[in-house]
Amino acid sequence: MAMFVVISYDIPDNRRRLKVAQTLLDFGGERVQRSVFECYITERNYERLQARLRRHFDGEADSIRFYILCENCRPRMNLWGLAHPIEEPRLRII
Amino acid sequence: MAMFVVISYDIPDNRRRLKVAQTLLDFGGERVQRSVFECYITERNYERLQARLRRHFDGEADSIRFYILCENCRPRMNLWGLAHPIEEPRLRII
Repeated sequence: MAMFVVISYDIPDNRRRLKVAQTLLDFGGERVQRSVFECYITERNYERLQARLRRHFDGEADSIRFYILCENCRPRMNLWGLAHPIEEPRLRII
Repeated sequence: MAMFVVISYDIPDNRRRLKVAQTLLDFGGERVQRSVFECYITERNYERLQARLRRHFDGEADSIRFYILCENCRPRMNLWGLAHPIEEPRLRII
């Protein structure tokens, strides 16, 4: 069963920020705001994602927050404006 | 019982963005990243907060996302780097 994770980040360095965004895309994350991604991901791949992100993370300058939303919390999401919720993938859980 | 809500926004207009940030602060929100706030708030005040935010929101240009995390989801938050989780207020629930 895939987890639903919201990942938000503040990363001043352009190169690191791009690497983090690319890594999130690599793991099937969907960009819903400039520095917020949403992702359906297995527990195993969530660990692999974090290991990959650690390579591009500077604890002195950067901030990344991971929020896991359970099946009760997901329907309570409230989305205004431009972005839309990502669909739970039928097939493509990586 | 207070709810825990994560609010993230993308608002290109400076004036609107400042108003949204100020409104979130007015309702006891804590800024944990440039455009991410966390907030312990009652259901009633969550409604009032949304009514206030609506005044400063342009659905054509802006995006605001509200994620409510239940008591099971909160401990699963994973925070890297600069910001720290906000403490559940003992007294000051407005």
